[in-house]
Amino acid sequence: MLEELKKKVYYANMRLRDEGLVVLTWGNASAFDPETGLVAIKPSGVSYGMLKPRDIVVVDLDGKVVEGRYRPSSDTPTHLEFYRSFKGVFGAVHTHSAEAVAWAQAAREIPCYGTTHADCFHGPVPVTRYLSEAEVAGDYEGNTGKVIVKLFRDKDPLAQPGVLVAGHGPFTWGKDVMKAVDNAVSLEEIAKMARNTESLAVSRSAKELPAYIGEKHYSRKHGPNAYYGQGGK
Amino acid sequence: MLEELKKKVYYANMRLRDEGLVVLTWGNASAFDPETGLVAIKPSGVSYGMLKPRDIVVVDLDGKVVEGRYRPSSDTPTHLEFYRSFKGVFGAVHTHSAEAVAWAQAAREIPCYGTTHADCFHGPVPVTRYLSEAEVAGDYEGNTGKVIVKLFRDKDPLAQPGVLVAGHGPFTWGKDVMKAVDNAVSLEEIAKMARNTESLAVSRSAKELPAYIGEKHYSRKHGPNAYYGQGGK
Amino acid sequence: MLEELKKKVYYANMRLRDEGLVVLTWGNASAFDPETGLVAIKPSGVSYGMLKPRDIVVVDLDGKVVEGRYRPSSDTPTHLEFYRSFKGVFGAVHTHSAEAVAWAQAAREIPCYGTTHADCFHGPVPVTRYLSEAEVAGDYEGNTGKVIVKLFRDKDPLAQPGVLVAGHGPFTWGKDVMKAVDNAVSLEEIAKMARNTESLAVSRSAKELPAYIGEKHYSRKHGPNAYYGQGGK
Amino acid sequence: MLEELKKKVYYANMRLRDEGLVVLTWGNASAFDPETGLVAIKPSGVSYGMLKPRDIVVVDLDGKVVEGRYRPSSDTPTHLEFYRSFKGVFGAVHTHSAEAVAWAQAAREIPCYGTTHADCFHGPVPVTRYLSEAEVAGDYEGNTGKVIVKLFRDKDPLAQPGVLVAGHGPFTWGKDVMKAVDNAVSLEEIAKMARNTESLAVSRSAKELPAYIGEKHYSRKHGPNAYYGQGGK
Repeated sequence: MLEELKKKVYYANMRLRDEGLVVLTWGNASAFDPETGLVAIKPSGVSYGMLKPRDIVVVDLDGKVVEGRYRPSSDTPTHLEFYRSFKGVFGAVHTHSAEAVAWAQAAREIPCYGTTHADCFHGPVPVTRYLSEAEVAGDYEGNTGKVIVKLFRDKDPLAQPGVLVAGHGPFTWGKDVMKAVDNAVSLEEIAKMARNTESLAVSRSAKELPAYIGEKHYSRKHGPNAYYGQGGK
Repeated sequence: MLEELKKKVYYANMRLRDEGLVVLTWGNASAFDPETGLVAIKPSGVSYGMLKPRDIVVVDLDGKVVEGRYRPSSDTPTHLEFYRSFKGVFGAVHTHSAEAVAWAQAAREIPCYGTTHADCFHGPVPVTRYLSEAEVAGDYEGNTGKVIVKLFRDKDPLAQPGVLVAGHGPFTWGKDVMKAVDNAVSLEEIAKMARNTESLAVSRSAKELPAYIGEKHYSRKHGPNAYYGQGGK
Repeated sequence: MLEELKKKVYYANMRLRDEGLVVLTWGNASAFDPETGLVAIKPSGVSYGMLKPRDIVVVDLDGKVVEGRYRPSSDTPTHLEFYRSFKGVFGAVHTHSAEAVAWAQAAREIPCYGTTHADCFHGPVPVTRYLSEAEVAGDYEGNTGKVIVKLFRDKDPLAQPGVLVAGHGPFTWGKDVMKAVDNAVSLEEIAKMARNTESLAVSRSAKELPAYIGEKHYSRKHGPNAYYGQGGK
Repeated sequence: MLEELKKKVYYANMRLRDEGLVVLTWGNASAFDPETGLVAIKPSGVSYGMLKPRDIVVVDLDGKVVEGRYRPSSDTPTHLEFYRSFKGVFGAVHTHSAEAVAWAQAAREIPCYGTTHADCFHGPVPVTRYLSEAEVAGDYEGNTGKVIVKLFRDKDPLAQPGVLVAGHGPFTWGKDVMKAVDNAVSLEEIAKMARNTESLAVSRSAKELPAYIGEKHYSRKHGPNAYYGQGGK
């Protein structure tokens, strides 16, 4: 059942690896089928090199396995919270991509520094608080989802299609699973650009190249007597 | 029509992806044919994995689509400003490459710190001001081009073949579209080198390796009694 | 003899290169067979491009070559210390992967900043002291192992499956050689994330994008009158 | 003539690109044949994608082209200074690899922070002064070589097989051209590690992960009731 959905979820998971967002088994993608109320998700801890479409696990919205010989991703309860609460969201992704994780570990939201960010996220990329000791001791992954959903109480999840969990890492989502992967790619790029922007914002000028050396180099390549390359020969 | 130009523009766009300058659909390249007064440019939002030479859109200098089943890049009006105003410029590129974007987001020009920069850009890589609210509300992409062209009033666009738009990202150009791609590659490298140069210019010495450890390592590989590798066996 | 083990060690070494953890010949992996008391390890200084399974060297726990036409890795005595002292450890890896080396060169342990770290290392990644002049003058590589083992006197090596040697670089291990490679991959990611986390922890806010530009970009892609892409055409 | 040497120089140049040390045409490798007194070197400005072994240019120690239809690299006079002055050096490389260039642009020598450095360079990687205006106005590339050779007056070029030219970039050399490429690879890695080491040496601790979250993550993967992965199923 849901063969098409499982295939899409398989390709979405493989793309996480191919886009450089996951190493080892550190990521998972899922999709929700609103007609059947079922969710297809990566099995837990299965390496990307071995993953096949038929390994994708199907669960219902309570997390009960409906199909599949593997245990679903340990993050499944987090994904399910999104599908239960976020209207219009039918795909979700979790990774430990390095640049987004750095912001999550610094427990900072990502400010909007440019149009690359604004093209994808409406406002800053929010960060949750750390989960409490009680939330961790209880249904940890479900509570992770609940903390995210609560943070989005007054937000439109399709306009801010991702979040950083403090001390943990990014979750993204979208109207389908491929869009959720796109958003994971965007978030990683935005996180990297923002880190470098902050580094450059502290004015730290170095010594500029003496002008006569710059002139020499420019003119040996582009001047009237250029001698770089094979031009004029 | 313009089959050769469309093919060149296709290859230039694919090279943007292959050189690591674009993720998803975040970039576009165009070329201007002075004989016909027509411009070939990437279609808007079409993924690089699906792009074909026949998908390249042909527009006139007013932006009217002359050929192609797709809508042209939303940045087309910016490209057209270059072709209308920059003498000798027949190719242009826009990307959101991460290192150049960081400088654009910091709203800083890139100082000339070395010969790699001087080989390609005559003087600093300039940065525009932020567009005003009125400029954004009006013909946004056309105004982006106008702000750039105005900044280059007293500059030679072939000697400074690129610019950073504050809060946005880089545009580069050249005597043909492949040269514009070369300049986008150069700009990204220069931006990365300049960021790291500034980081190193703040003297932050760490503890050096104790000399006796360094001696041991050098001599076990290169000394008279070297035992690293298969030498002497 | 030990053909299966040599093949595993061969693949583990090749994976070090394929995961981007080694350049040139800067790394080695080994495995210990508890039944025979023998260790299979990469030959010293042989390039990864030329390495074959049959080139893997077999030594006993005293370092005596039992099989193989090559000299074993110069780091063999360090690996042997692990197998002699760490219960449950049957695979080990040494690399000069750039991010882990930076922490080793700064002579700092890696604090646990997030769940990526906690998923793999129980507590900080420890760092040894610099070896003394006498330790370097004597059995240098054996002493490197002894300094590590002493640091782990009160630690569980399977719960903290790696270490940084001050001024040198990382060693990792595990219940088998593939797990030791996994841990080397994890350590490199953790080291990179921790460096970037510290950089972000120093609040260095840059100028945010003017809101009207952000609104424009978001709405031209996602608003009711979006004109990016091919939607509505 | 010198077909073998030209082939080696061809492969060495291609390796510069494959190791990620050059973009566009920003690099060149050469080899010196002591028997004939001739040098084989990359042609100037020819793209790596088009380069063939037969394109390699042969010059004598005065820079006169002896064979080849192309103009030799504009950096040829620098290479020739090495072969005239450095005993035992038969291969040389110049690149604009980003990490080494950052140190050159900061006009700083690279201190020896660890064994990766000590394995390859005996002492710091030296940096030249900026060339004077007169040196630039005259035989610029020859003077670049002379400034380097003068800096090495009291050094052993085989023990310190590379240098940074202030405001420019790295040159490396070795007993043959492949060793010179190896040294270019090593220098780039060392430069990156040293930059990150200095960044970490400034103590900038971030907030550590609350211990109960770390415990949870470690135990859900490795504890007695681990539920990550497919173990126990």
